[in-house]
Formats: sequence, C-alpha cells, structure tokens
Amino acid sequence: MRAVDLIEKKKRGKALAEEEIRFLINGFTAGSVPDYQMAAWAMAVCFQGMTAAETAALTAAMAESGDRADLTGLGGRTVDKHSTGGVGDKTTLIVAPIVASLGGIVAKMSGRGLGHTGGTVDKLESIPGYQTELSPAAFVRQAQDVGLVVAGQSGNLAPADKKLYALRDVTATVDSIPLIASSVMSKKLAAGSASIVLDVKTGSGAFMKTPEKAAELAEEMVAIGRAAGRRVSALITNMDLPLGSAVGNGLEVEEAIAVLQGRGPRDLRQLCLHLAAEMLSLCRGWTPEEALAQAETALDGGRALEKMKEWIAAQGGDLEAFAAGRRARRIEGRPLAAPKSGYITRMDAEKIGISAVLLGAGRAAKGDAVDHDAGLRILKKTGSCVEAGEVIAELYPGAGRDPAEAEACYLAGLTIEEGAPEPQPLIYQKIGGLE
Amino acid sequence: MRAVDLIEKKKRGKALAEEEIRFLINGFTAGSVPDYQMAAWAMAVCFQGMTAAETAALTAAMAESGDRADLTGLGGRTVDKHSTGGVGDKTTLIVAPIVASLGGIVAKMSGRGLGHTGGTVDKLESIPGYQTELSPAAFVRQAQDVGLVVAGQSGNLAPADKKLYALRDVTATVDSIPLIASSVMSKKLAAGSASIVLDVKTGSGAFMKTPEKAAELAEEMVAIGRAAGRRVSALITNMDLPLGSAVGNGLEVEEAIAVLQGRGPRDLRQLCLHLAAEMLSLCRGWTPEEALAQAETALDGGRALEKMKEWIAAQGGDLEAFAAGRRARRIEGRPLAAPKSGYITRMDAEKIGISAVLLGAGRAAKGDAVDHDAGLRILKKTGSCVEAGEVIAELYPGAGRDPAEAEACYLAGLTIEEGAPEPQPLIYQKIGGLE
Repeated sequence: MRAVDLIEKKKRGKALAEEEIRFLINGFTAGSVPDYQMAAWAMAVCFQGMTAAETAALTAAMAESGDRADLTGLGGRTVDKHSTGGVGDKTTLIVAPIVASLGGIVAKMSGRGLGHTGGTVDKLESIPGYQTELSPAAFVRQAQDVGLVVAGQSGNLAPADKKLYALRDVTATVDSIPLIASSVMSKKLAAGSASIVLDVKTGSGAFMKTPEKAAELAEEMVAIGRAAGRRVSALITNMDLPLGSAVGNGLEVEEAIAVLQGRGPRDLRQLCLHLAAEMLSLCRGWTPEEALAQAETALDGGRALEKMKEWIAAQGGDLEAFAAGRRARRIEGRPLAAPKSGYITRMDAEKIGISAVLLGAGRAAKGDAVDHDAGLRILKKTGSCVEAGEVIAELYPGAGRDPAEAEACYLAGLTIEEGAPEPQPLIYQKIGGLE
Repeated sequence: MRAVDLIEKKKRGKALAEEEIRFLINGFTAGSVPDYQMAAWAMAVCFQGMTAAETAALTAAMAESGDRADLTGLGGRTVDKHSTGGVGDKTTLIVAPIVASLGGIVAKMSGRGLGHTGGTVDKLESIPGYQTELSPAAFVRQAQDVGLVVAGQSGNLAPADKKLYALRDVTATVDSIPLIASSVMSKKLAAGSASIVLDVKTGSGAFMKTPEKAAELAEEMVAIGRAAGRRVSALITNMDLPLGSAVGNGLEVEEAIAVLQGRGPRDLRQLCLHLAAEMLSLCRGWTPEEALAQAETALDGGRALEKMKEWIAAQGGDLEAFAAGRRARRIEGRPLAAPKSGYITRMDAEKIGISAVLLGAGRAAKGDAVDHDAGLRILKKTGSCVEAGEVIAELYPGAGRDPAEAEACYLAGLTIEEGAPEPQPLIYQKIGGLE
C-alpha cells in the first residue's frame, strides 16, 4: 500500500477502505507517512468529504493510537460531556455534580483553554490545592468512590489526532466537518465513557457560525459514537453571546458555585439542567422528562452542591480558601460604561473572549500562563436596555495588565441600537439520544 | 504574510496575487515554507485551478529560482523545442539541425529519460565522445559558432520547479494543468530562447490521454510563454503509438541519422518537418508554408545532415565510431513473432516504452544506468496486416538482460483484430504561432 495512491483515491472522490485509513493514520503516527502526504490527503478530504464508514474508521484509528482509559470496571453508567468550546462555558462544573449526585459516573479528562475559549482544567486550577494530574489508578478509584473525577488530559490520549490537528492548523484544513468530528470523537472514545453528550455551540463565539452547520457536525459526531457502540446525544446551543456572566477562571468557578447554590444566571442554569438531563437519560435510561425533573430536584435540593464539595475535596481542592480569595479580589473590578443609550442588540462572544484573554484570563499561545483571578463579569447582555454611562461590565485585569485594550475589544464586540432585538433560543435542537 | 492564509485563499477559490505566489515559491525554495504547506496548496490548486495571471506568476517565480541561460547576446533567432515526452521521440536530433541549417539558433538543454519515455541526453551519449556537460561560456560560444548546441540541463535550472515536482509526485498532485504547464514553462523560460515550440503528445503513451486535454495544456503553456514575452506555438501530436520504429538510445540516433539521409520512417520525417517549420516560422518570421518548404529543402538537400555532423563534432562526438558500433550490434536482434493473424489495431505506446526499459534502454529510478545499445525496433505498426508467426519487432536486450519479460510486455501492448483500424492523424492541431 502506498500513501500516494490513497491520496489520489480520495482526490478522485472515492472512499478509502478501513485498512487504508488505518495505514495512513498508523503510518502518520509512526512517522512513515510524512506530514506532506497527510496535508495533501487532508486537503483532498476538505473538497471530497468522507463517508460515514471512513469517518468512523478514522476516528477509531486515532482513538487507538495512544493511551485509552479503561472504565469498563465501572459498569454502564459512565457518561462524558464535551463542549465544542465557548466563552464563559463553565457547564462541566455544574453538570457533572448534578449527574453524579443522581448515580451517573462522570470520569472526565478535560483540556486547557486556547485562544478566546477557556478550558475546564484552567478553571479548576483556580481552586487552591486542586490536583489535575492523577494516575490512571487514582482516576478510576475516585470515579468509583465519588462518581465524579475531572483530571487533565493524558499527554498520550489520541496522539494521532494531536499530530493531525497541529498539521491541519497550519495547512488551512481545519474546516472539514468529518475531520472536526473525528478529532473530537477520537478523544471521547479513548476517554472510555459508555455515554457521551455533546454540547455543539453555534454563533459568533463558536467555530460553527450557523445552527445548520452545527447540526451537520453534531449528526456526524453522533453517528461516529454510535458506530463505536456508545450512547450519544448532542444539543445545538447558542454561543452568539457568552454563557452566564463570568468570563475568566476563578470568576467562572464562583459563578458555577452560585448556580449550584440556587443562584446564578438563568441561561447558564437552564443549559446545565438540559445537558445534565441528556447525560442522565443516556446513562440511567430515563426519559428526557424524568431526567430533567430529577436534575432540577438535585440542583434545587442541594444534592448537586454537596456532590461538588465531595468531588473537589477528593482532588485536594480547598473551596473555603477559594471563596476567601474571591472576596478579597472583588474590590478590584473596574467598571465599564455603556458608550451610548439603547438596546444591546448583539454581543460578539469571540471579542468578549479575547477581551478576557487580554486581561490575562487565557492564553494566546500554548504554554502561556493564565492568571486565575483575571477576567470580566458581564452585567448587561443582549436584549438589555442601557443608558449611556451605565455600568455594563466589570473588568478584572491580571497583575500588570493595562485594561485599555481589553475595554476597547469588549466595546468593539457590542452593538447598541434603538430597537429591542429578537430573543434568541438557548437550545436550538437535540440530535441523537437513547435509541 | 502567512502561508496558511494563502492556502486558505486558494482553497476558497480565490486567486493569489503575484507577490503572494512569490512568497510561497521563494519560501519553499529557501525552506521557510515547509513541504506540508506546499502540498496542501498544490492539492487546493488541483481542485480550484489557477488564473492565467497566477500561472504566469508561478512560472516566473520558478524560472527565476536558480540559474538562467543568458542568450541575449545571440539576438532574436534563438529557438527551443520541448516535447512533453513520448516513446521513440528522437525529433530533437533531426529538427535541431534542420532549423540551425536555416539560420535558427538552437541552444538547448535537455533531460535524461525516466520511466517509459526516453531523454535526449541519454540518446546523444550513445555517440562515442559526445560531451553533454558544457560550461555556460562554451554553451553560448557553440550556439554562436555552429547555431546548434545540446547539453544536459544545469542542476540548478528552476530548482523550485524541481522541488515542487518531486513533492507533487508523492502527494497525488501531478495532474493539474496549470501546475504541469508552469513546470514545463519555468524550465523553458530559464533556458532563455526567444521562441519556443511545444510538442504536446496525446494518446496511450502520453500523460494527456485525449487531444482535448492536450490542447488545454498547450493553450496554457502558450499563454504563459507569451505573458513572458516569448514567441510560442504548440503542436498537438499523436503518441497513441511510438514515433518511428526505433526505441532505445543508440537505435534512435541511428534512425534520426537515417531521416537526415532521406530515409527513415515517414511519420517521424513528417512530424520533424512540421516541428522544424514551426520553429523557423517563429525565429525567422516566415509564413508556415514558406517555413515548411525551406525545411523540406534543407532535409532533402543534405544541409541538415551536414549541420548535424558539424554539431556532433563540435561537442566531441564520433559518428564514424558510432556507425561501426551499430553495425557490430545488429546481429543481436531477436525476432518477435505475431501471436496471431489480423490487423494491428492498437499499440499501447507506454507498454512498448516499458518493454524497452526492461531490455535496459531506460531507467526505472533516477540514477540507474542505461544501456545505449539496448532497445527494440518496431517492424509492424498500427494498421499493418500481419500473419501469425510473422516477425513484427526485433528486440535488443542489454547485457545480462532476459528478454522474456520485455517480450510479454510488448505483446500485452498489442491488439490484433480482424478488421483494419481507422487511420489516426499524426498532428491534431496547432495552437499559438506568430502573432
């Protein structure tokens, strides 16, 4: 078998066989298929697409290219959640305790943030003492004992995906739905949970700019997961504006705790309940209605908050110290005023995410440090009527950061007009679910 | 400027600006634009094509990437010829002396053979003493004195093209008309002649399988050459069967001499007269009819043969020794018999070319040695009526070669049927010419 013939085949619009895809991916991982051949193949895929069978084979080959978490000893209630990335997305911190408090087992590996979107591991590290590096044995043991563990992603999880993604990034071959879908799903399959709920974001802060494109990606990911024998569902959710109010690691953890305490922004609470319900439906076999009712009860009755405390303590985190730290920092908020009066008709979530990065909350390049206290709090969101000079946000610049650029970026993302905007849905559509 | 953005632009079907193409080619030559980005760009070009301006810019950038022959001191009569590659194509050996005997200046750099097609340099090296490596000064001096010089191609002629071609070869990005056209023309532009005649082959032995595809390539090359200020024309010619009878280096030189002596196969003589007429029309400004008449007179009157002797002697070749060597070898011909009776309706030129390679006449990989005496002579071509057992070809195996595989390959390329085939044209079409 020669890589050049397989590239030619794809270029002509033919489907590669499973063993042909394995030849490419295994060779690429081992170094016998060079970067330039994979780049040509990826570009051909951008034009010709892949069949469902090809995408499933690609995903499986990448999932099997490195370490895989063995969660089989935990039974069938293991459930994972993945967000395609958004601004202010702290749902894992709320959803995971809800689900675990109701008998689901959430054994999750999360990533760090890059660019305008944050990462769960960065958020959790704002809690003093929280350990994100766990041995495989400790990871499984905590999942067993607490029903909830969130650790950093193993360096060797789906290395073929890591290598291919880095190559796609520099060869203008990122925006292929089968390649995006297989990239996400290869890590989810390697992470081992029996059920997977996907939160596919759409809008100005998301990679998929329209609900239709997001649905296309979701369909593809659900099909891949099911082909691999997993239970999968996907919600297409709004990322045309940030989720909740807080953007930035410590600020987001604080907001997640507020939701678990029965407070916090309504959009965040609603989305978390629906994501938790999807996870519970898949891992417990409940109907969506039953699962939603159970999730509401666990959240409102404090069971989810208790589960969160148990989880954080199990990983060494000190929530008291965290809360004390947050109180001490609150004085640092710098008010941002509305430049004119009117309705906020549009917030560019990506610009607001970049604004938080400029304050020190995120990283522009891999390996940059993040400031756990930096970020911003949105006081007025899309649909709000504001007066010129009214405070619409609070910025928390990290140590040594000049907030001027972040302010300008935030305001550049804002549209203020005379008429009120049409309300947007929080959740557009559900795809997949129990079969 | 970032390469990834330029790849993205081409992927979206937009045309790159001249400076963007120069950025890619100069970066690729210097090593700052890596193989994998050029591979992705080349694949995007395969799908999206290039505009005439892009193709011209690419060709110019590659032509300027290395050494360029400076023929300006020779005036406006310099004329080059390029064949896209065929089996039994020894036209340069005949055409160049015709043209030079009529005042054209043919200062030509030729390549070596690879795969099923031969190279002029290999053919000339079958003449004892012939020097293919000349200094730039000696090259220009001989062009001035004799009007004819044929040397091996400088190692640093259009290095960007060399590097890009090697990459395309392993990334399934060869079959793009603008990329093929710019590859050929970059070398022709760097080689410096004021006029260029292209012999674009079509049929079973050619890369372009149909006259329509060949015409598309020819149009593109003529446009590139004219954009660079050269006079260009192209003939679309038949390579559905080998040209002439001889295939193999020494055998082909012998056949070329026969044509210059007024003998030799009719198809070869006719094609050479038309190619020479095109060259003369461009470099002397003659009408096509006048140029053809002059070429016939030079060939039939022996002037072209005299010019050939002068040329070969100037480069150190000994035609007496060559002729003696050929006579000594003639006894080695092994007859190949027709397997059945009927008309030869089809000869696969590529298979016959490979048959000659198997006998030792060509090279399967770069750097392989060729046997100058090896090859074959075709006695019966498409359209001939043959009896079973009649000799249809003579094979000349190189030292230590078993001819069995070559025989099988030759016969596999032959179709013998009851009815006579339709005659095929030798020249399909002319594109370009004096403006």
